[in-house]
Amino acid sequence: MSLTSPLHGVVPPVCTPLDSRGEVDTTSLARLVEHLIGGGVHGLFALGSTSEVAYLTDAQRATALATVVDATGGRVPVLAGVIDTTTARVVEHARAAAELGADALVATAPFYTRTHDREIAQHFRRLHAAVGLPLFAYDIPVAVHSMLSPALVRELAEDGTLSGLKDSSGDEGGLRRLIVGLGGRDGRANGPAPRFSILTGSELTVDAALLAGADGVVPGIGNVDPAGYVRLYDAARAGKWELAAKEQERLVELFAMVDAGPEADMGRSSSALGSFKAALKLLGVIACGDTAFPQIQLSAESVAVVAQRLRAAGLPPVR
Amino acid sequence: MSLTSPLHGVVPPVCTPLDSRGEVDTTSLARLVEHLIGGGVHGLFALGSTSEVAYLTDAQRATALATVVDATGGRVPVLAGVIDTTTARVVEHARAAAELGADALVATAPFYTRTHDREIAQHFRRLHAAVGLPLFAYDIPVAVHSMLSPALVRELAEDGTLSGLKDSSGDEGGLRRLIVGLGGRDGRANGPAPRFSILTGSELTVDAALLAGADGVVPGIGNVDPAGYVRLYDAARAGKWELAAKEQERLVELFAMVDAGPEADMGRSSSALGSFKAALKLLGVIACGDTAFPQIQLSAESVAVVAQRLRAAGLPPVR
Amino acid sequence: MSLTSPLHGVVPPVCTPLDSRGEVDTTSLARLVEHLIGGGVHGLFALGSTSEVAYLTDAQRATALATVVDATGGRVPVLAGVIDTTTARVVEHARAAAELGADALVATAPFYTRTHDREIAQHFRRLHAAVGLPLFAYDIPVAVHSMLSPALVRELAEDGTLSGLKDSSGDEGGLRRLIVGLGGRDGRANGPAPRFSILTGSELTVDAALLAGADGVVPGIGNVDPAGYVRLYDAARAGKWELAAKEQERLVELFAMVDAGPEADMGRSSSALGSFKAALKLLGVIACGDTAFPQIQLSAESVAVVAQRLRAAGLPPVR
Amino acid sequence: MSLTSPLHGVVPPVCTPLDSRGEVDTTSLARLVEHLIGGGVHGLFALGSTSEVAYLTDAQRATALATVVDATGGRVPVLAGVIDTTTARVVEHARAAAELGADALVATAPFYTRTHDREIAQHFRRLHAAVGLPLFAYDIPVAVHSMLSPALVRELAEDGTLSGLKDSSGDEGGLRRLIVGLGGRDGRANGPAPRFSILTGSELTVDAALLAGADGVVPGIGNVDPAGYVRLYDAARAGKWELAAKEQERLVELFAMVDAGPEADMGRSSSALGSFKAALKLLGVIACGDTAFPQIQLSAESVAVVAQRLRAAGLPPVR
Repeated sequence: MSLTSPLHGVVPPVCTPLDSRGEVDTTSLARLVEHLIGGGVHGLFALGSTSEVAYLTDAQRATALATVVDATGGRVPVLAGVIDTTTARVVEHARAAAELGADALVATAPFYTRTHDREIAQHFRRLHAAVGLPLFAYDIPVAVHSMLSPALVRELAEDGTLSGLKDSSGDEGGLRRLIVGLGGRDGRANGPAPRFSILTGSELTVDAALLAGADGVVPGIGNVDPAGYVRLYDAARAGKWELAAKEQERLVELFAMVDAGPEADMGRSSSALGSFKAALKLLGVIACGDTAFPQIQLSAESVAVVAQRLRAAGLPPVR
Repeated sequence: MSLTSPLHGVVPPVCTPLDSRGEVDTTSLARLVEHLIGGGVHGLFALGSTSEVAYLTDAQRATALATVVDATGGRVPVLAGVIDTTTARVVEHARAAAELGADALVATAPFYTRTHDREIAQHFRRLHAAVGLPLFAYDIPVAVHSMLSPALVRELAEDGTLSGLKDSSGDEGGLRRLIVGLGGRDGRANGPAPRFSILTGSELTVDAALLAGADGVVPGIGNVDPAGYVRLYDAARAGKWELAAKEQERLVELFAMVDAGPEADMGRSSSALGSFKAALKLLGVIACGDTAFPQIQLSAESVAVVAQRLRAAGLPPVR
Repeated sequence: MSLTSPLHGVVPPVCTPLDSRGEVDTTSLARLVEHLIGGGVHGLFALGSTSEVAYLTDAQRATALATVVDATGGRVPVLAGVIDTTTARVVEHARAAAELGADALVATAPFYTRTHDREIAQHFRRLHAAVGLPLFAYDIPVAVHSMLSPALVRELAEDGTLSGLKDSSGDEGGLRRLIVGLGGRDGRANGPAPRFSILTGSELTVDAALLAGADGVVPGIGNVDPAGYVRLYDAARAGKWELAAKEQERLVELFAMVDAGPEADMGRSSSALGSFKAALKLLGVIACGDTAFPQIQLSAESVAVVAQRLRAAGLPPVR
Repeated sequence: MSLTSPLHGVVPPVCTPLDSRGEVDTTSLARLVEHLIGGGVHGLFALGSTSEVAYLTDAQRATALATVVDATGGRVPVLAGVIDTTTARVVEHARAAAELGADALVATAPFYTRTHDREIAQHFRRLHAAVGLPLFAYDIPVAVHSMLSPALVRELAEDGTLSGLKDSSGDEGGLRRLIVGLGGRDGRANGPAPRFSILTGSELTVDAALLAGADGVVPGIGNVDPAGYVRLYDAARAGKWELAAKEQERLVELFAMVDAGPEADMGRSSSALGSFKAALKLLGVIACGDTAFPQIQLSAESVAVVAQRLRAAGLPPVR
């Protein structure tokens, strides 16, 4: 499904269910896609950080993306993460994603190596030239350890290199400055980059981002409760901001499941991914809650905490 | 004016005008207080980071605070920053501020030294025991280089050590989790710490913070346009969220004055403080726009940029 | 050439010469290997950070490693970097490197994702189990954004998972604590991990590292002046510490070439790599000094600075 | 005792013994000075980070400095830390220190506020102009959160603003570049800043720093074993580098006492300071091992670990 208009709405980063041997569980993944589309989401982001893209081999990435594209069947656009250290490697992923039917690409700045604004600009420009698909910049300093400057994003938006931004910078003030620079919440349709789509990855402040003028959200915990984020989005679009805020509060409470894993024993990232997958298993969506090696798995006690959070949010486990 | 109810509304961190010798210009400071109260603000925060507290000697701090208290004359509460490296030094500032008539204190975690949650808890508890005034925790990692954990703030809120939080962490998701933990946007009146006041220092996303349930804002650029922030606050309180967002957008554009100083030649902090003071001089509020030594002063070109931003925001310079 | 004794001496991270289309220039690379072995080095580290491994596709990595192995012809051991985000991807690189004839592997902790000591331990253990080759941990927080804890390195040294450490942490005090923990400069032969090899990547303090008990060095600028580092190493081994220090000083002055590129226009990393390659071209070793896309290339002025540094260090350009 | 020649040798940062009420224990402090001078040290650094300067009120700072100056009686030079956020506040400390008889001053760059090279240069220049004493720059990014650039230090060394550098940056490569830039280990007497003294605060790599050309060391754990550091220094000055390295190894093992406090319960800084003070109490030098509020005190178990370390290093506790 080509992106005929700027992407908007709820676009979850699709978890990649794995079996107990660590291979992609395509049956569970197809079921997850159905769960998300059934929840009313407006797009899917495969091979993002929440999809454990950094843990998947190229073959596993291809399997995961092909499964998502196939299961989606054109009902919503599918964005594909093309995550690797530098341009030449990213271009290879981008070509593979294009062949597998992705509707758009999501790429970060170079990482592992230290980089620079002028290099980042060249990186996105060559990537866009090499593969014709709409290109989203993925600003995620917690992974990439550099931030995209608002000036650079604006430049690449205005010259058509970028079709959008997936902002996981956590810098809401910077995002606001970018939106205002692009024409503001009302004026963006007539702004310097009219078709530029801004999606926030800050899943705890989506009401705020939409009020500021963002087009949508890429919520990790949207895997667990896609319908909740769709209600939040619809309330905001209807101008019912206090209703949106109440829905956001419920989702903030649900999100507390990411604290399930004890910080002393596992990383923050594996605890969050593990709790999302545990929740999806408890809800009967996927068969196995394992995260990819070498992440530490949630203990039974932690899974019990996840179950409790689900119940409190009105999402009772089915097993 | 004692804090009989939780502090709320617009509480600007009051700039400290200096004369050309670097001494506190009390006449200009009194005029600035009048400018702010005339703009409708709900409180004043003296001796904060924007007040250049880190640059002032103890004698200058006393002069500045006494001037603000005196000029305010009890019309709104005056909060006093008590900024120093560790407990014993902060207690001395706190006693001085109490004697000078401050209505509440604002203190950070220890800095310069590396610290720890248990130490920070002891720090705030002793400070509160030593000086009876309502105490606000000031979370400003850009200065202090540690963050207050939500768990710690909640503990100190619930046991009555803290009367509020001035949040300049930039972590809007963490702030949302704290608000929800304290009862949420509606439930905080009956929450575990019912009289706890949450003020955001993120001046570019105030509409968002108020929607999330914050009580008010401490905007540096509120020195320049206090009435704008009051309009924003009033719109939010009236549930007119889109009106609030439009006002916020205007203030975001005004805020771009902080880019006036070239980054190659001066620090980000001195550029922001210098532009606020240049704007106050252009508006006829203060006599001299100098920032404290050893900060680099804005060039004439930079001041011209500030003037341009003022005009664009509907605040024409008077000189 | 198998590692029959702990690796020691000068083991440069071999630059990867590229042609003007960005492809590996195997002729130049073979000549560089000859330049290094002719300089007396004790081993070669292919596909390290200085080799621009993060910029090379898998096919280019294979070409570069095969060329180094082939040109070396067993005269010294060849270590191969297997740099990727997480275990499954690293194992694929490790298998490829083993097939191409590498004598040992060099791997970092997981990156892009946030990780944790227990996960890092599992990562190195599975990698070692999957591919039989001697395994070196590569501690390079500037790229990986986490540090290997001395306790973890010691644990993995003592249980035989790791054969050595390539330390680019910059934390010389921590390295000293590790060496003392492993038995000290004299006692390591009888220490808890007797065959464990410690190589420093801190090329400006090699005399110090050898005095502390390190076994060798992996100097990026050793590409330019391998004989200098070999003289430094030999002086240290002979107990002529002041001679070693004088040689180190000469190499520190040579190293100043990395400042050749203006920081305003290019990143620190591309400036360093660009100056090494410019020097190798000036010395007639490689045909083209280009660094991989999207790095910014050195200007002619910068290349002139490199030439000046070469002359001052007694290494006159031949073109 | 004026600094008639560049400062060199072992210059411990003198711990500030406190009584159980948190006040400076001048009797213990005088005994500590005797312990240090008796150990052969070449100077004393009062009111440094290890002296808990950040925890002391101005009155306590004056008491501590007066006690050190008085107990020293001119036998060695006394340097005084003048640690505060910005210039005006530092100048006040500097004047107080000069009146109390300090022989030299040690100042950091501005902190709490964000700063900039040009501002730092102005800061040191005004400080030097205001108080005639020799001035040392204190590079301690772990506390100050900015680093002094080698170019800036060199500029301020060459124009006579600075008499020396106390380097606690941990960046040994940067320090080496600075030394080479100032004329190198042999050439510094005739270098561009001939009387400039470089003292390392990296107490685990002192042999290395002396080999590189540093003039001396400011070792925190030199409070506990001053004679050990003097032996290390003397060995280095005699060109007996391997003897120096062996002494350094013994001191590295002694230093492991800083791990005594469990990281889960107290900060790294309070654990190190607490272990030094516990050791001084165990050795009969000071009466009470308490660190300043709000630091967490070492448990009895941790003190037992300190005692064990002392015994292993040949420094048996006397109580």
